[in-house]
Amino acid sequence: MLLRVRSAVGHLVAGLGPGAGAQPPAEPRRGGGGAGTGGGGGSSGGAAALFCRPAFLQLTPEELRRADDHTGRAVQSPRDGRRRLPWSTGYAEVINAGKSQHNEDQACCEVVFVERRPSPRGRPPSGDGSGELDGGRKGFYFHYWALFDGHAGSGAAVMASKRLHLHICEQLRDLVDILQDPSPPPICLQHDTRAGAAELSRAPLTEDNGEVPSDALPRFHLEKAVSHESLVIGAIENAFKHMDDQIEQERASQSISGGCCALAAVYLMGKFYVANAGDSRAIIIRNGEIIPMSREFTPETERQRLQFLAFLRPELLGKEFTHLEFPRRIQPKELGKKMLYRDQNMNGWAYKKIEEDDLKFPLIYGEGKKARVMATIGVTRGLGDHDLKVFSSNIHIKPFLSCFPEVRVYDLTQYEHCPDDVLVLGTDGLWDVTNDEEVASVVMEVLTSYEPNDPCRYTMVAQELVVRSRGVLKERGWRLPNDRLGSGDDISVFVIPLGGPGNYT
Amino acid sequence: MLLRVRSAVGHLVAGLGPGAGAQPPAEPRRGGGGAGTGGGGGSSGGAAALFCRPAFLQLTPEELRRADDHTGRAVQSPRDGRRRLPWSTGYAEVINAGKSQHNEDQACCEVVFVERRPSPRGRPPSGDGSGELDGGRKGFYFHYWALFDGHAGSGAAVMASKRLHLHICEQLRDLVDILQDPSPPPICLQHDTRAGAAELSRAPLTEDNGEVPSDALPRFHLEKAVSHESLVIGAIENAFKHMDDQIEQERASQSISGGCCALAAVYLMGKFYVANAGDSRAIIIRNGEIIPMSREFTPETERQRLQFLAFLRPELLGKEFTHLEFPRRIQPKELGKKMLYRDQNMNGWAYKKIEEDDLKFPLIYGEGKKARVMATIGVTRGLGDHDLKVFSSNIHIKPFLSCFPEVRVYDLTQYEHCPDDVLVLGTDGLWDVTNDEEVASVVMEVLTSYEPNDPCRYTMVAQELVVRSRGVLKERGWRLPNDRLGSGDDISVFVIPLGGPGNYT
Repeated sequence: MLLRVRSAVGHLVAGLGPGAGAQPPAEPRRGGGGAGTGGGGGSSGGAAALFCRPAFLQLTPEELRRADDHTGRAVQSPRDGRRRLPWSTGYAEVINAGKSQHNEDQACCEVVFVERRPSPRGRPPSGDGSGELDGGRKGFYFHYWALFDGHAGSGAAVMASKRLHLHICEQLRDLVDILQDPSPPPICLQHDTRAGAAELSRAPLTEDNGEVPSDALPRFHLEKAVSHESLVIGAIENAFKHMDDQIEQERASQSISGGCCALAAVYLMGKFYVANAGDSRAIIIRNGEIIPMSREFTPETERQRLQFLAFLRPELLGKEFTHLEFPRRIQPKELGKKMLYRDQNMNGWAYKKIEEDDLKFPLIYGEGKKARVMATIGVTRGLGDHDLKVFSSNIHIKPFLSCFPEVRVYDLTQYEHCPDDVLVLGTDGLWDVTNDEEVASVVMEVLTSYEPNDPCRYTMVAQELVVRSRGVLKERGWRLPNDRLGSGDDISVFVIPLGGPGNYT
Repeated sequence: MLLRVRSAVGHLVAGLGPGAGAQPPAEPRRGGGGAGTGGGGGSSGGAAALFCRPAFLQLTPEELRRADDHTGRAVQSPRDGRRRLPWSTGYAEVINAGKSQHNEDQACCEVVFVERRPSPRGRPPSGDGSGELDGGRKGFYFHYWALFDGHAGSGAAVMASKRLHLHICEQLRDLVDILQDPSPPPICLQHDTRAGAAELSRAPLTEDNGEVPSDALPRFHLEKAVSHESLVIGAIENAFKHMDDQIEQERASQSISGGCCALAAVYLMGKFYVANAGDSRAIIIRNGEIIPMSREFTPETERQRLQFLAFLRPELLGKEFTHLEFPRRIQPKELGKKMLYRDQNMNGWAYKKIEEDDLKFPLIYGEGKKARVMATIGVTRGLGDHDLKVFSSNIHIKPFLSCFPEVRVYDLTQYEHCPDDVLVLGTDGLWDVTNDEEVASVVMEVLTSYEPNDPCRYTMVAQELVVRSRGVLKERGWRLPNDRLGSGDDISVFVIPLGGPGNYT
């Protein structure tokens, strides 16, 4: 595996010049501080940034004004002749039809260098030469694409779009040596002598350290094997958690409002890691076949987790809500009758006699896009929302929301990909009106009308997906060709080619 | 749908005579009492029944002695010339190689009549004639097959094998009218005037009842549609819960020891409902294709639910356990080092600095068949285990075990089944050494060597599956043909034909 990693990293570097269509990697931070204090890539996520669009769009003030226009709803993509996205990734977005003042979606696309954390005692790096990049700095690159769908304000989405990849980078820094070593990750690392240090037990011991390295301990009868892949998954999961913590800590000083769904794709050492917290969606279209790369987290899909929590911690319901689900509101005069209900252990429904407590509002209520937690929020994972409360009450909703993503892995090396194979990331504005099959058919239709080596073909797909989901403005609003209502939501789409003309193979 | 239901019920009844190979239905209870006090089918689950084998085997005392012999491990099936199981179902079992004194698996196969609960005020039934069966009694039949894999004693498995179907029957009694009515189930039923009564709101109102029927209430804007299917699922889920409650209540007086996994298949109105709580498994083999009908509930598959519970209710861990997962035991001298861990929100792994609290034993520990909750039990759903404690401690394990099954539905009417299509139920003794593909290949191999209308062919499959998993006694124990160890566990298998020569189509 070492060889494959080396080779992959080598190719990455070779292809990183602007001539190859790639964006120069963000300047990695060398210090050991938190991502929030780091340098490259991140500008302030505060109030001043509220009206921004993704940096890679490089919009002029006039273009920004046009992108912010609800009536025209002009589709935005990186302009021809300006810097292209890595791998010739396609991107397009459009603002909502008026449901919020600005486009609350945000996006990010970066190539990030993960630099090995310096040795705690100034020891030289272990020195086998692997992964020495970028003028002697030891580490590796990852590619990163992410969409953030904000609600109740743009603050959380803007901040997450500028910082989440830095948190992922931070989590990976301790793993630089481990991920590049083909042997299984060590279960236990050497004594952690300095803050932030993570020396491997197999690093040579200096004389002043007489401890037995952990590897010399007897192997345990029951010792679980942990894969490199699961370390990357753990790093991404914890990065989401740290991102959420940072929003919590800085929300007052930086006036960060609202919350956001986050969908991030990380390409690292031959594998895609697709992390989703919210109701955005990722699918791979490979040889015409659809491979789901995420699932949505909503009051309906997470009902049992939420009911279980409320059942164990009834104080979180503030005497206003019941953890039981009912198919509709119960009226006081129905007391004593039998009503259908679902408890946290059930997937089916049964009848129960209505008691006083059942007259409270159900924790989970409504169906499909109208399903809500505590009559307030329709998505159950994401970042931010630390101040979200039930209307005119003091009941916090955040305890029911998880900031942890589900991470799915796709091994790019297991299949020979053609130029028409793509990973599509979209916010719910896309998927609400265009299903997986329709997206796949648009992808195939548009790609066939461009040469396989035409770098703009993925942008054309992204634009077409956005236009088809937005529809056309008619007398009765934005309409699809079949006269159904188009999406009035913000819509954002990445179309990432899996097999050329990217620069990664 | 009414028509289809009527027709299905009609066929069921027509085929129920002994001449058609079916077992006469158990005498349904007419009273409103709990299943535990009811009549038909259930004998005492107490100490006296500890050495029993399934009633449908009709073993003589001599045969029972032979079935109980660990050294011979003779395979047991219903004898030729005695009563056949419904649908010519195949069944085979074998005792373990000595790991417990008796065979701790149990099995049940019944046709159960669900009689509509009598009207609370002596009203006549609504009188459209549908579902009037069995000499004017109103109701329907369901077919039932179940396997119970006991541990730490036979009591729970024996009792559940004699009672679970009665609890399912009890739960379905309130639904007799609703399930036979093609319109959507009512959300709210009429006032529940007598204990156990469940009059539908659409039943004609008597003069002494001036209430407005619920259906006349305004329809609610957000009203969830609930299917008939999900009512059956809810009934089965609650039946498992009531079964578990009954074991809890009677365990002292009836000396019911241990706990058991439960896997039950219910055939009702054209659909199979496969309910699984534990590590038994059900698969359908249709036209050579494998369709999983259950998943296993083990410390590994339910890790996050268990960790979440322990995180929210740390007092359940009794200061002996930590809810974090580690790949191996931590030694006190490793304090301060970094160790891989997983929290309840994580699927990946990350390093954390070892603190004092991490030296406690992990709630979930071990891998595969050796994975345990609190170092004690390897299965996380089932019935019983109310007295199970961590060895030489006062820490109860039952709070971490769920008695609720996952119910999967298979619609038999959606596909034209051939005589070689079967549903296979097996305890883990089967699946530990024989995987899905091997089971499918044995099924196809054996079935082709018998005529499609030979009623004993499914028994032959069941026997072959048991023999192949048990292996043959050699010098170094029970061995498979490839010389790997055979299963030393109890093994029980049902092979249920989905398309003839059953009597249900």
